[in-house]
Amino acid sequence: MNTLGHNFRLTTFGESHGTAIGGVIEGCPSQLKLDFDFIESELLRRKTAQSPTSSQRKETDRIEWLSGLLDGVTLGTPIAFMVRNEDAQLKDYEALKDVYRPSHADFTYEQKYGLRDWRGGGRASARTTLPVVVAGAIAKQILKGQGIGIVSEITSMGDAEQARKEGNTVGGIVECRIIGVPAGLGEPMFGKFSAELAYAMFSLPAVKGFEVGDGFALAQMKGSEANDAFVNKEGKITTLTNHSGGIQGGITNGQDVVFRVAFKPIPSLTQLQQTVNRAGKPCEIAIGGRHDVCALPRAVVLVEALAAMVTVDMGFSCIFAPSTIR
Amino acid sequence: MNTLGHNFRLTTFGESHGTAIGGVIEGCPSQLKLDFDFIESELLRRKTAQSPTSSQRKETDRIEWLSGLLDGVTLGTPIAFMVRNEDAQLKDYEALKDVYRPSHADFTYEQKYGLRDWRGGGRASARTTLPVVVAGAIAKQILKGQGIGIVSEITSMGDAEQARKEGNTVGGIVECRIIGVPAGLGEPMFGKFSAELAYAMFSLPAVKGFEVGDGFALAQMKGSEANDAFVNKEGKITTLTNHSGGIQGGITNGQDVVFRVAFKPIPSLTQLQQTVNRAGKPCEIAIGGRHDVCALPRAVVLVEALAAMVTVDMGFSCIFAPSTIR
Amino acid sequence: MNTLGHNFRLTTFGESHGTAIGGVIEGCPSQLKLDFDFIESELLRRKTAQSPTSSQRKETDRIEWLSGLLDGVTLGTPIAFMVRNEDAQLKDYEALKDVYRPSHADFTYEQKYGLRDWRGGGRASARTTLPVVVAGAIAKQILKGQGIGIVSEITSMGDAEQARKEGNTVGGIVECRIIGVPAGLGEPMFGKFSAELAYAMFSLPAVKGFEVGDGFALAQMKGSEANDAFVNKEGKITTLTNHSGGIQGGITNGQDVVFRVAFKPIPSLTQLQQTVNRAGKPCEIAIGGRHDVCALPRAVVLVEALAAMVTVDMGFSCIFAPSTIR
Amino acid sequence: MNTLGHNFRLTTFGESHGTAIGGVIEGCPSQLKLDFDFIESELLRRKTAQSPTSSQRKETDRIEWLSGLLDGVTLGTPIAFMVRNEDAQLKDYEALKDVYRPSHADFTYEQKYGLRDWRGGGRASARTTLPVVVAGAIAKQILKGQGIGIVSEITSMGDAEQARKEGNTVGGIVECRIIGVPAGLGEPMFGKFSAELAYAMFSLPAVKGFEVGDGFALAQMKGSEANDAFVNKEGKITTLTNHSGGIQGGITNGQDVVFRVAFKPIPSLTQLQQTVNRAGKPCEIAIGGRHDVCALPRAVVLVEALAAMVTVDMGFSCIFAPSTIR
Repeated sequence: MNTLGHNFRLTTFGESHGTAIGGVIEGCPSQLKLDFDFIESELLRRKTAQSPTSSQRKETDRIEWLSGLLDGVTLGTPIAFMVRNEDAQLKDYEALKDVYRPSHADFTYEQKYGLRDWRGGGRASARTTLPVVVAGAIAKQILKGQGIGIVSEITSMGDAEQARKEGNTVGGIVECRIIGVPAGLGEPMFGKFSAELAYAMFSLPAVKGFEVGDGFALAQMKGSEANDAFVNKEGKITTLTNHSGGIQGGITNGQDVVFRVAFKPIPSLTQLQQTVNRAGKPCEIAIGGRHDVCALPRAVVLVEALAAMVTVDMGFSCIFAPSTIR
Repeated sequence: MNTLGHNFRLTTFGESHGTAIGGVIEGCPSQLKLDFDFIESELLRRKTAQSPTSSQRKETDRIEWLSGLLDGVTLGTPIAFMVRNEDAQLKDYEALKDVYRPSHADFTYEQKYGLRDWRGGGRASARTTLPVVVAGAIAKQILKGQGIGIVSEITSMGDAEQARKEGNTVGGIVECRIIGVPAGLGEPMFGKFSAELAYAMFSLPAVKGFEVGDGFALAQMKGSEANDAFVNKEGKITTLTNHSGGIQGGITNGQDVVFRVAFKPIPSLTQLQQTVNRAGKPCEIAIGGRHDVCALPRAVVLVEALAAMVTVDMGFSCIFAPSTIR
Repeated sequence: MNTLGHNFRLTTFGESHGTAIGGVIEGCPSQLKLDFDFIESELLRRKTAQSPTSSQRKETDRIEWLSGLLDGVTLGTPIAFMVRNEDAQLKDYEALKDVYRPSHADFTYEQKYGLRDWRGGGRASARTTLPVVVAGAIAKQILKGQGIGIVSEITSMGDAEQARKEGNTVGGIVECRIIGVPAGLGEPMFGKFSAELAYAMFSLPAVKGFEVGDGFALAQMKGSEANDAFVNKEGKITTLTNHSGGIQGGITNGQDVVFRVAFKPIPSLTQLQQTVNRAGKPCEIAIGGRHDVCALPRAVVLVEALAAMVTVDMGFSCIFAPSTIR
Repeated sequence: MNTLGHNFRLTTFGESHGTAIGGVIEGCPSQLKLDFDFIESELLRRKTAQSPTSSQRKETDRIEWLSGLLDGVTLGTPIAFMVRNEDAQLKDYEALKDVYRPSHADFTYEQKYGLRDWRGGGRASARTTLPVVVAGAIAKQILKGQGIGIVSEITSMGDAEQARKEGNTVGGIVECRIIGVPAGLGEPMFGKFSAELAYAMFSLPAVKGFEVGDGFALAQMKGSEANDAFVNKEGKITTLTNHSGGIQGGITNGQDVVFRVAFKPIPSLTQLQQTVNRAGKPCEIAIGGRHDVCALPRAVVLVEALAAMVTVDMGFSCIFAPSTIR
């Protein structure tokens, strides 16, 4: 299960310090001239060292396009791409080879597979989200052609500079808004638009919460406060409020789709922590290397990318086709 | 997309006042003697009129088993079942035929399909979750044989009796705990255990939020507060705390899996609401009929059922099989 | 895996002498007024006792429609249906309970599941193809609206009346033609139109061979004999010959799609056969009951039904939608 | 749809003269030390210029392993690999840019996608089967560990040397045998072992026919000739004959699985052919370049590779796991 999506699909591969990371995009319409500058600019948003909260790892992130294109135009066949992992400093990681870092995936990977790639988190590294940015940028380009836009912002974040001083890290919340999404997207029972979004967002490392519209706050409201009254606004049926976050019965209603994603603090601390090694013996670790204090600045573009991919995927029968026989 | 699951799968069908609702379960192991009493008792937990917050609709919910069984023992072939819809009082609904109920799926279904079954919410009715209870009960029976249990409780709920007096409704939060789940369940990238749970829970009507472990609260913590230190407890590696909710890197770590689901208030109010009809003309409605004041008492068993189904589904390669060649 | 199709999907359930057999159709467009008379007429084509080669079992095959319809019009939600198994004469089968009938699925089901439904072949009975006829009839109705037709004929069959006298059975070949199918259907690599057809046809009991166009005969030809020259026929590009059977590179070329399906003789013989029982002890059996001498007369409608389903399924992005952005 | 398999899956990408062709393998068990020498030897079997019937294109086919491995041992994560396309001589193809080669996929790709990669057949080139050899070699290694072997041979082929002289090509038939496959593999209804094999084989270019066991010949037999009597051979239940090709009711019976695949002649002829160009104007072409006279010598390893992949895929619940609860 390394694939996201049903019609517009991304299959990813790669470990943090293996040969390369990359992806295969299927279901991208043919005859689309890819906007490579835009893809690069999206990758830059994710790139290391972009802000005071991010780590110092110098990632070049040069994409090699392997297939699916002729003179930069999509052929309708799978678009494969990869980025080589060039900056591996394995000595940073060897000390961690036999230790389970707290709240990392070291222990669970070993439980599942019997072994793990200990070099920089392997498949569990945040670096493996890079292909999501590429596919998301292409999805955004498709949506732009349909008048659909995606914006997001950090609405909550701990004090990163204070945390850095203590060798600590912080978490936060990203709010995202899909603007101009047509009514009718999403399946009624098990492929609800909200469920697809939730699934996609929980694919990101460190995500621990997801809510649509007023989300958890709705649990404290009365129906009369939570309901969105329908109104006729210049001949178009819409809602007066948007507590529902643009989704009712799992299907978009034409309002902005609004959701929030909660990220836990990055678990790699430079301060000392208690843990055990593979033999079960207690030990202490301080995680050096080049780690972010907060995932949020990079996560913003990832949240948007996944939102774009889900929208294109769910919109196939609606954006690109009539859903009914007339 | 009316199917949940990959290996243990439920496909559901039915509208609230169509002929029947039901489901087809695939991937249930053969040679399992179904515990029909337990299935009935789980259905009773979902049944109408069980508590002061629930509606007065008399649902008999008698299951007809259609296939997949020989003398009550599973054959390994699909288990189909259905429950007839016997108590339709269509006159309750005809007044709503041309009106869009606020925060219901009337409008979105029409946008998607060009028509809708207006009888009691059709496919969007909470009644269509009944097959989930049946499949969940079978999943629980499978898990019980593996020493895995599932418990849940309502941890937050509005004042239902006050709301009923005002013709209003309330929402709330259900917390669920999967106990005894082995380490190693879940896929690392796009089939994370947390993502599968989120997807399943958002399939329930009225769900607007989902969080794992400390969830949204983690966004406010520092790494040193959020991390779960590994410890050696009588020869077994486990964690001192469980802020992660039993899932790290998308894979279970052997701790209890803990998550919470936020439900918005039921949108059917007996008090007057503003809305528009299909022609876009403003109008007022008061929704009569037999509606619950709060979905939570019924939702508890649904949350458990989906948690059980996800656990069986994700556990196939782990519970029933070695995941590696040795 | 009891589902056929990706966009237009049929999930089937049921054993020959369980409570019922039936299916769930997903992906049928909404707002389609089902032609129930046509569905009945297709079921009649499959029905027992229709010809001298068929058995005497009286199947009533009355369909109960369970969901997905409002006043006979599709809602876009899953269409579930079932037919009760009313004519079970279990004494016919009890003698076979512990014996492995040659070239039947008794032995393989037991190897797979550890038990089997011995009543009339259980899930392996030809009766379980009934849902295919229903879904196929709906698919044909959809295709008819697009100007696509499906015809088939028996092009080879053994001497059935002679075989009946000997207590024997015969096989044969069905040729099917999909007329008016647009160019561009099928996926280039693993979802070739020919592969999808092959997969569907091999789902039928007793199928042992499948070929497209000139099929196995092409293996004996030279390229100059096998190639279909393109010609311009009144402004439309087509081929002079159709050795390819309407499929090139896995994708339809606008010519008729032509294929053939080879059926082995029905393995149930009234003459005496050698076999072993469950304990591995040699024994003799003569299979009584109501069995056909030849599957072909019934198989014709099944071949057509599956061809229609595959065409609708593969045609979704082509028939119902533009496949490219312009 | 560029993915084959359910549990053991290969996703392929690449055009004949794009940057690279390759694949992503999912579901390969962890802790397997890959036999790279064997993979190379399998690639050599497919390689150009190996026999008098094959073309002169010098393919180096050096695999770059991109992910999923640590010191040559599988991690359980996706194994991505690629081979660069180094030997492109585009001038060979430019003459064909605007012409539809008879019985090639030029026309159908353009009908489907609105454009095509005209360089050497693009995605439709036989070169794109290279990833199948890699995945097949890994599958064979897994099967070998289970005592399962796969052998095949060309049982029919036209006179290649005579055809070469005429600028012509020939087709033929490959017979394949899966030896030691356990009973119980395959799903009863839509995932029959025979259907999965048929689907896989029809994914190969130029395949036009597929049959299991005695295949089309069974259509001419009587039941008494076609049935495989069960016998007890030294305490093990098996069949006296194997007309069924090891599959009954879609499920393996423990006998060798035997099937045949029919390949049409390669459509690229050096002799002159009539066709039309993109404008629909009649023209003549003689296809130069480096083309094989017969696909069969290369196809043998592809047929085996796909057979191995299907066996591993279908065998997951049987080879690697108990299929029932006991």
